[in-house]
Amino acid sequence: MYRSHTNGELRQSHLNQDVTLSGWVQKSRDKGFIIWVDLRDRYGITQLVFDAERTPAEMMEKARKLQREFVIQIQGKVIERESKNNSIPTGNIEVLVEKLIVLNESKTPPFTIENETDGGEDLRMKYRYLDIRRNPVKDKLVFRSKVSMEVRKYLSNQDFVEVETPYLIKSTPEGARDFVVPSRMNAGQFYALPQSPQTFKQLLMVGGMDKYFQIVKCFRDEDLRADRQPEFTQIDCEMAFVEQEDILQTFEGLTKHLLKEINGIKVEDFPRMTYDDAMQTYGNDKPDIRFGMQFAELNEVAQHKDFNVFNEAELVVGIAIPSCASYSRKELDALVKWVQRPQVGAKGMVYVKFNEDGSFKSTVDKFYNQEDLAQWAEKTGAKPGDLIAVLSGEKNTTRAQLSALRMEMGNRLGLRKPSEFAPLWVVDFPLLEWDEETKRYHAMHHPFTSPKAEQIPLLATDPAAVKANAYDLVLNGNEIGGGSIRIHDKATQAQMFDYLGFTEEEAKAQFGFLMDAFQYGAPPHGGIAFGLDRLVAILGGQESIRDFIAFPKNNAGRDIMIDAPAAIDEKQLAELHLAKVEKK
Amino acid sequence: MYRSHTNGELRQSHLNQDVTLSGWVQKSRDKGFIIWVDLRDRYGITQLVFDAERTPAEMMEKARKLQREFVIQIQGKVIERESKNNSIPTGNIEVLVEKLIVLNESKTPPFTIENETDGGEDLRMKYRYLDIRRNPVKDKLVFRSKVSMEVRKYLSNQDFVEVETPYLIKSTPEGARDFVVPSRMNAGQFYALPQSPQTFKQLLMVGGMDKYFQIVKCFRDEDLRADRQPEFTQIDCEMAFVEQEDILQTFEGLTKHLLKEINGIKVEDFPRMTYDDAMQTYGNDKPDIRFGMQFAELNEVAQHKDFNVFNEAELVVGIAIPSCASYSRKELDALVKWVQRPQVGAKGMVYVKFNEDGSFKSTVDKFYNQEDLAQWAEKTGAKPGDLIAVLSGEKNTTRAQLSALRMEMGNRLGLRKPSEFAPLWVVDFPLLEWDEETKRYHAMHHPFTSPKAEQIPLLATDPAAVKANAYDLVLNGNEIGGGSIRIHDKATQAQMFDYLGFTEEEAKAQFGFLMDAFQYGAPPHGGIAFGLDRLVAILGGQESIRDFIAFPKNNAGRDIMIDAPAAIDEKQLAELHLAKVEKK
Repeated sequence: MYRSHTNGELRQSHLNQDVTLSGWVQKSRDKGFIIWVDLRDRYGITQLVFDAERTPAEMMEKARKLQREFVIQIQGKVIERESKNNSIPTGNIEVLVEKLIVLNESKTPPFTIENETDGGEDLRMKYRYLDIRRNPVKDKLVFRSKVSMEVRKYLSNQDFVEVETPYLIKSTPEGARDFVVPSRMNAGQFYALPQSPQTFKQLLMVGGMDKYFQIVKCFRDEDLRADRQPEFTQIDCEMAFVEQEDILQTFEGLTKHLLKEINGIKVEDFPRMTYDDAMQTYGNDKPDIRFGMQFAELNEVAQHKDFNVFNEAELVVGIAIPSCASYSRKELDALVKWVQRPQVGAKGMVYVKFNEDGSFKSTVDKFYNQEDLAQWAEKTGAKPGDLIAVLSGEKNTTRAQLSALRMEMGNRLGLRKPSEFAPLWVVDFPLLEWDEETKRYHAMHHPFTSPKAEQIPLLATDPAAVKANAYDLVLNGNEIGGGSIRIHDKATQAQMFDYLGFTEEEAKAQFGFLMDAFQYGAPPHGGIAFGLDRLVAILGGQESIRDFIAFPKNNAGRDIMIDAPAAIDEKQLAELHLAKVEKK
Repeated sequence: MYRSHTNGELRQSHLNQDVTLSGWVQKSRDKGFIIWVDLRDRYGITQLVFDAERTPAEMMEKARKLQREFVIQIQGKVIERESKNNSIPTGNIEVLVEKLIVLNESKTPPFTIENETDGGEDLRMKYRYLDIRRNPVKDKLVFRSKVSMEVRKYLSNQDFVEVETPYLIKSTPEGARDFVVPSRMNAGQFYALPQSPQTFKQLLMVGGMDKYFQIVKCFRDEDLRADRQPEFTQIDCEMAFVEQEDILQTFEGLTKHLLKEINGIKVEDFPRMTYDDAMQTYGNDKPDIRFGMQFAELNEVAQHKDFNVFNEAELVVGIAIPSCASYSRKELDALVKWVQRPQVGAKGMVYVKFNEDGSFKSTVDKFYNQEDLAQWAEKTGAKPGDLIAVLSGEKNTTRAQLSALRMEMGNRLGLRKPSEFAPLWVVDFPLLEWDEETKRYHAMHHPFTSPKAEQIPLLATDPAAVKANAYDLVLNGNEIGGGSIRIHDKATQAQMFDYLGFTEEEAKAQFGFLMDAFQYGAPPHGGIAFGLDRLVAILGGQESIRDFIAFPKNNAGRDIMIDAPAAIDEKQLAELHLAKVEKK
């Protein structure tokens, strides 16, 4: 038996007990006549003491040689500490060592195994197994495990069945970002790894499974943006005989359960906002509603003077930034520069200081008088001391730019508190979106998303106006889940394919067996999928998902610890009836 | 709202309530003035009634047109049935329909959606989404979900952390059966799908995760034997600071928990048997101990006469088959033929009838007298009425042949009861096994399996005799789990690689980063992995795993529902810098 207790377990109630402990040497302090060693495992730290008065000289010598990250086992007696350490739960006791065994030595680790390490990102990733020993990383993985378990408990209690869908599936013509897997047994043929189990969960509904969920890896071979992974985890769910309201209720319940069990927070019923309102009020379909700075459209009160920049704009829109009227000229110039960065892309920015004395000072005083600016203040809800920022131009672009500024100011002003949670349903997404490249409409969600029944006739006259039974769950400015009610009847599906410009053959090629399945009594159904990596990070109060993944890949899709992907044997390729083609 | 209740919910306590139900038409009986419809969903069946006296003529007509597997929604009143059906929980009531909506029609399904279907295996697989509607399949998937959940509950309660390890890993030179995944972003390079997360779970132990588990898909691209799948699910576990005993206790606890929660069965502490004993007593390292017929080695009592077949054999071994002395000559001839089938491969079989009157009648009466045969009876534990079957030849081959016969007779005699559970630990597996092809020793489990400490010196003199800290959990004649204590120190590892004939370079190439990791303080650790597909099947009292997998592949590794694997676009291949090579 390697241990009688873990290193996070011993308290004053254990005083005078003989214990056996195992773990890693976190650090040691050698005061000559006394040596303290912090012994660490997943559960905590216990202070060991070797004391020349009570410890044999030979063991003192052995203890003196212990280095960081050595793995040791000790036997000893729990005694009271002279100087207590209130910052750790075991801080009232220490263990006077009577027997010391070195289970394994360790080279000096390439970075310190401390909460704050001196190791850079790349080094930490290369030695991820050492990085995981650090509390901040270890805690996040334990946290993730807890979230997954609570998800499963909640959904199981609601009669959901976790069904494992296959990983070796079929590549579809639209699957441009599929990872493919050559088969040896069926040489010359390929499986594909699923980008999501979408088809299978719909088949499970056709199969009467009624309530399905799965926590499942999904795969996408695409150019990675920061904080995306080629393999990622989804909480995938689908329900039969439901309307949108049933789904929102069920998964609002799940999210409340998580916030309560994981974060100890009770939240009210989630507000709902239409996609149109979200775009108008926040310039964004995943608004962070932890703070205000809502958009005010100013066309009416800003397009009646000689300021052509505004007069020619499709949209003039502003926000009141709290308590920033005191910004210096330099700070304001920097802010204008910020919105002009390529990542934001505004041409310029008009601003109005709403001074504490009630007067206004703006960059457009030449065109607008105090009464005009007072109207802007009223519209944006600005108070004395606030700074009004106004952008103008094409509607969608301008909204996106102002949204970026709003989020930036939210961050700068500390309004995006990680410990505060503001969930929000965004509903009534457009069914279709126009694709400039192919000059046709694409399904915004996917081709089985159902249109609002009463708007189906609009498909013929104003397709862009048709809304879908599609919804996103937004938490603190992040989309954590999204889904839709699916089309389950042939007639609507045929209509949809028609509007999407699919011929019957194309539709068959892409969705053949799902369409076949739908002929045998598909029930009304719908679902949702949550991005677990993101969800866990946000519940953990963090922006980056990387540390919530045990062995993440870098932005080039590489695992630098195991050095994958890598070349493979010619022999292996030959067995797959494949050959390399040199890059041109 | 599509339903107020499920179809398994209504009881007499609901009488006179107005309800809304949805589901599939299981069948209808049209008696002219009255029409009964069985409405089905995942939860059960509710009988609907349309009655010309109370139902409008128009609705009678509509009801008359309902066909099998139509999806309908009804409103109606719960009434008492005239003729109760005690075989279903809703059998005391029926619902008098007041409103009928056809949600979706259905083509006639290709096989009947009944417990006993007329559909053959291939048809059922092609239309798996319909097969899943059948109770026997649906119930198995729900059962699997329950088993997985109980595994997670038990292990979480024991402080195990579920950590997701990557699916896109690296192919190793030994990974001959790896599925590989070409990367587009890193064109010309490949990931591999894991055959198991073995390396990663050991890295997690190095990383201090202490207790890890994961229910995870694994992949193996090999010629499939019956009832193997290219993708399969493992309950993968690893613990640090443990000895073999800790692991056996923990996972015996898990298995007991499952048998109790899932099967409602309390089992005693699991017996343990060494590998050597299992081979000697059952000819098999995964014996089914639900029944006897233990092997008796007869060399001593059968090699003293002129029967050369026995005299020249390395092993003469027999079993007493209960109550089969009454077998006719024809039946006995058939049994001899059975052991001579190529799948078993015995040259012949000697048998002895132990007649009820105490006399013996054997195929070798010419060589052995009644006293000789009485000795055989004593050794095999035969009683009057039993049949003694004796095989002879090379030790291992003969054991395997007699084991096959024992299992066959266990099946024929109904001794392998699906509702009975006899778990067993098989321990002390050999560390190495001799490979005739490469003329060297291979690790029987894997190269990190630790030898019994006291036997390490034997490696130099009698490698085959060295036992490992390796163990299998056997349930009803199936290996459901297996694992080992790992080598965690450099010295033993170097010694092992040496005996396995790895040069330092080869070892580095295959296990490089794991060996690197081990230099930074690897703790003592060990683990186990369970085959979930098999475990679930056995707990469910079945032999075949196929129906416990939602979308299984056939013996050629094909998913015949989605028709995968399949050819992919030349364009897709070109992006991966690959080209097809025509088969020769």
